[in-house]
Parts: sequence; structure tokens; C-alpha cells
Amino acid sequence: MCQLLGMNCNTPTDIVFSFTGFATRGGQTDEHKDGWGIAFFEGKGVRHFVDHQPAVSSPIAQLIKQYPIKSKNVIAHIRKATQGEVMLENCHPFVREYWGQQWVFAHNGDLKEFYPTLDGHFHPVGTTDSERAFCFLMQELARAFPHQAKDEQPSVEQLQAVLQGLTRQIASFGTFNMLLSNGQALFVHCSTRLHYVERRFPFTTATLSDDDLAVDFAQVTTPQDKVAVIVTEPLTNNENWHAFAPGEFRLFVEGSAMKATEVKP
Amino acid sequence: MCQLLGMNCNTPTDIVFSFTGFATRGGQTDEHKDGWGIAFFEGKGVRHFVDHQPAVSSPIAQLIKQYPIKSKNVIAHIRKATQGEVMLENCHPFVREYWGQQWVFAHNGDLKEFYPTLDGHFHPVGTTDSERAFCFLMQELARAFPHQAKDEQPSVEQLQAVLQGLTRQIASFGTFNMLLSNGQALFVHCSTRLHYVERRFPFTTATLSDDDLAVDFAQVTTPQDKVAVIVTEPLTNNENWHAFAPGEFRLFVEGSAMKATEVKP
Repeated sequence: MCQLLGMNCNTPTDIVFSFTGFATRGGQTDEHKDGWGIAFFEGKGVRHFVDHQPAVSSPIAQLIKQYPIKSKNVIAHIRKATQGEVMLENCHPFVREYWGQQWVFAHNGDLKEFYPTLDGHFHPVGTTDSERAFCFLMQELARAFPHQAKDEQPSVEQLQAVLQGLTRQIASFGTFNMLLSNGQALFVHCSTRLHYVERRFPFTTATLSDDDLAVDFAQVTTPQDKVAVIVTEPLTNNENWHAFAPGEFRLFVEGSAMKATEVKP
Repeated sequence: MCQLLGMNCNTPTDIVFSFTGFATRGGQTDEHKDGWGIAFFEGKGVRHFVDHQPAVSSPIAQLIKQYPIKSKNVIAHIRKATQGEVMLENCHPFVREYWGQQWVFAHNGDLKEFYPTLDGHFHPVGTTDSERAFCFLMQELARAFPHQAKDEQPSVEQLQAVLQGLTRQIASFGTFNMLLSNGQALFVHCSTRLHYVERRFPFTTATLSDDDLAVDFAQVTTPQDKVAVIVTEPLTNNENWHAFAPGEFRLFVEGSAMKATEVKP
């Protein structure tokens, strides 16, 4: 299995603190050593870093821990291979363009016999069940909103209604904890294990569970800042982490957790 | 204008030496300081680094200069903005997936009034003429080979025949020096200025024009290695660089320059 980390904020924020704890699980405090990756939205652009070395010893992970890239939406992943060899093309997160937007996806879990018909414009480059699921999601989104010009992109509400149904469909094949973002919102589906915390005023000091590091967020924020962090297992031992329920779908917008509206079957 | 750097090899090779000279032009020995980027194929996967800081001072460029990533196809770019603001989404190279392959593209030049109809599945994320040209190329490739399953990808020969016509068509709108790769070959079109060198046995010592650095390739190669480097202006002052002719289209496969076959109009 793998571990997921996501961040959604109302102001560009660096993820150095959370990533430092998370990357420690990539080969040191935990066994997820078959590659890792992280993608940062910056404006409409994406910085995408993947490496098939363990996160704990990767020179690129070292850079990320030292270089405070500020972003409103970040998705990171450390991999313990279940399907697909340890190769760069099998490292999450995966990125595709559609409607002139970048889409970023990462998955934790294992899908059994999941071979959807992919006859649209999205095809896996690697050999993971995860990238197949991502291509299926993009194909079905493209079908749900077929005639959208670049300036008529579907709204976050329209997207979540379709994504909630699609993620439920994929989750019937196995474990499907996933993070997806188009830079406007972070969409989350939980099959088994995911947690989130909302950091906001008044900010306090947080201490990492996996590393000897604490940060006083009050020193590095303004009272208006809102930051939501979503992760497989809580990263700190003194914050109010919420566990997702199995089957729960949520979206995060501007640093706040939103409840998915009910989708009619 | 901008500058381009490409490398095509028959064995995975690091680009540290050439990139070091090239990055120096990004704000130090030359004026291309409006961002930069580099993409490395590794197997079927791609490592893609972009930064809107000048290459000469970017921490990510620093990493690339120190971390010998080995690749058979590399495309790099340093930008001096002509169209489109200095933003991450306007940094080359651009990446798209099609046929389960990653496609990487970078452009030097300026296209006047180039607004092709983009009604397929490829749309620009940023605002450059270059990304419009890339989306147009991908759209027309997808139209030329519409029913290809993942295991029936067009051959390099089929691709070059179509690409030679398409690049000529785009070049009629202005300056279109470009590098394009799907990881199998490096396709090159020259409008005005591009040079290439083929490094092969017996290898010699090369000295950078832009930096105080020399390397004896005989020490870091085997007699079987073939490496072609394509760049706007020659990087070394003691190698046999060939200038492309205006309007020339060439592909590079396994470290060798191939002459494009004539395309019937």
C-alpha cells in the first residue's frame, strides 16, 4: 500500500513542515520506499516531481524539504508497490491536461480486476491500476461535459456531482483512497483510511509524529489564512485530526472542508 | 527569444556538462532570464522541471547541475518572454500524454497571428504561442492516426512524415525552431538558428564556451555510446558543430542524426 498527502489553502502556502514528516515514512519510519512524488499548482501551472528512489534518500525530496514552494493545492504520494514495477512511469501523482487545466491524481489502495474500457483520449503510460483509474476518471469527465470550450469549464459543483458517482463506481473494485485536483479544489475519496485537519486562526504550535520538528504556525501565517491538510495517517500528535468515514467523498476549497452534496443515483 | 537544448542518445546519458553551459545563458552570459525548464525521459516516464526564476539562480537548476539524471532523450529551454507573461504555466518544455506515451515540446521563436482552431482534446494551459503550436501538433497527429490502440502506435517514420508537413505549416506564421520527443526519437525543425554535434568514439575533451569547465568524454563513455546534442548556439568551442539550414527538419534516433525523408506534398 502507499500513503497520500494533500494540501488545500486559501493563500499560497509552503508544505515543507508536513512534507518533512511525510517523507520520513518513505523508507525510514515506515516501509513506503518504492518511489514517491509531489505536484504543486502554481497559478495554472504545475511543478511535478517524481522519483523512484525512496523519499527519505532522494536528492529531489531533499530539495523540496529545503525550498519553500508556495501553492494552494498540493498532492504527494509515497509508494509501496502492489501493482506495477518500481519505475518512474509508475510513480504518483499522475498529471493530465483537459479543458486547458492541469489535473493531478494520486491513489492509495489496490483495485482488483479493474480494466475499464479506455477508448477515449486518456491512456496509461505505466502499468498501475491507479493510472488506469485516473484515465477512466478523466475519460468519463470528458464524456460528462463534452462540449465545454476553455472558457466554459464545468464548475466545482458540477465536477463533484460526477466525481462522487465515478469514485464510488471505481471503489467497488477494491480500495480507492484518492486525491484529485484541477487547481481550483481538492477532491477526496476515502475507502479505508484518510484523515484531515483544518488549520486556521488562532494558530498553534504543531509537532511532527515522525520527526523531531515543531512549528509555531502563528509565526508564519496571517489571521485570514486557512489551510487543510489531508493525509493517510495524522502527521502531528497535538492537532484535531478528523478521520474520513469509509465511502466518504469530500471536496476542499480555499482551505475548508466541504460536505459533498448528495448525488441522486 | 529563447534558447533550446536537446539530447538524444543510444544509452542513458547525463546532461550535466551541457546543461551547465546552457543554464549560464539563463541570466549570466546571456539575457534569457524569464524562466526555464527541462524534461528527461526515463523509461516511458518523464521527469519535468520548470521554474520561472532565471536558470542561473534557480535552486532547481542547481540540483540538475549536481544530480546526474541519465536519459536517452532530454529537452531543455531558457526563456526570454515574447508572448505570454512570466508565469510557471508559460515555461517550456510542455508535456502531454497521447497513445499512452509522454510527448515533450519546446519552441524558440515568435509566431505572428497564430490562432489555429483547437477543437480536439489538447488545449493550452498558459498563454504562449508555443503551447498553442504544441496543442495544434498533437491535435493533428491524433487526427492523422485516429484509431491507434496503445499497442499500435505509429512508427517513427510515420510520425516524421506527418510532423514534417505540420512544422512547415506552422513555420509559415513566423520563427519556429522546435524540439519534440515521445521518448523514441527527437524531432527537430529549424527556422533560423539551431546546431548539432554528434559525439561518438573516439571521444575527446570538450570545453564549454560559457563556463570554465572541460570534460574528457573518453573517461565517462564506452566505445559504443552515441550522443547527439542539439542547441541554439554551440556550447563548446572545440567540437564539430553543424548548423541546420533554415526550413530543415531532422530526426535523431539512438544518438544519430537522420535525414528526414522527402514528404510528398
